[in-house]
Amino acid sequence: MLEKTTRMNYLYDFYQSLLTPKQRSYMSLYYLDDFSLGEIAEEYDVSRQAVYDNIKRTEAMLEEYEEKLLLFQKFHERSKLLVKIKEMLKEDNPINETIIETVAKLEKLD
Amino acid sequence: MLEKTTRMNYLYDFYQSLLTPKQRSYMSLYYLDDFSLGEIAEEYDVSRQAVYDNIKRTEAMLEEYEEKLLLFQKFHERSKLLVKIKEMLKEDNPINETIIETVAKLEKLD
Repeated sequence: MLEKTTRMNYLYDFYQSLLTPKQRSYMSLYYLDDFSLGEIAEEYDVSRQAVYDNIKRTEAMLEEYEEKLLLFQKFHERSKLLVKIKEMLKEDNPINETIIETVAKLEKLD
Repeated sequence: MLEKTTRMNYLYDFYQSLLTPKQRSYMSLYYLDDFSLGEIAEEYDVSRQAVYDNIKRTEAMLEEYEEKLLLFQKFHERSKLLVKIKEMLKEDNPINETIIETVAKLEKLD
């Protein structure tokens, strides 16, 4: 569950601009502010089931966007490469060739 | 016109996965293969106006996605930073601090 929450937080971060205001409200209360379905239902004066359905649909949409655009996956790969570059730069005598190769990999990600 | 074509090529590249197969076909014939509206109309046995309307709507959609996700803009900014890093690495004594700062800027773009 924690893993799913982390993933949803990331996907929400990347694709929230493609959601409707209502989808954004429910998702942000549920995933960022840790509200329960019941609490969101009360807040918006709708049924718990309606909130549940909306959130499930939104989660599916976020996964569909990720399948098409891969923003989270690319972000993850870029982050790893950047960490690697920073480590190489910390060394006293950085091996420039290796850094150059890593930068080239970064460029290919776009 | 050339500038618009270049921009549309980029936007198409970034967001084509969010388009319908028909939108993709028209856009790719028009922008990548340089077909005229008349030639596309003939190919698909529809009116020139129908092709024109479809392409105009698709262009608007691509601009809307860019407004929301900024993939092209971020790609452009990242490319500039990567060019800068590569230039610094070419120097005999790269100033690591400056490279580290540039890498930090790259990280903030995600």
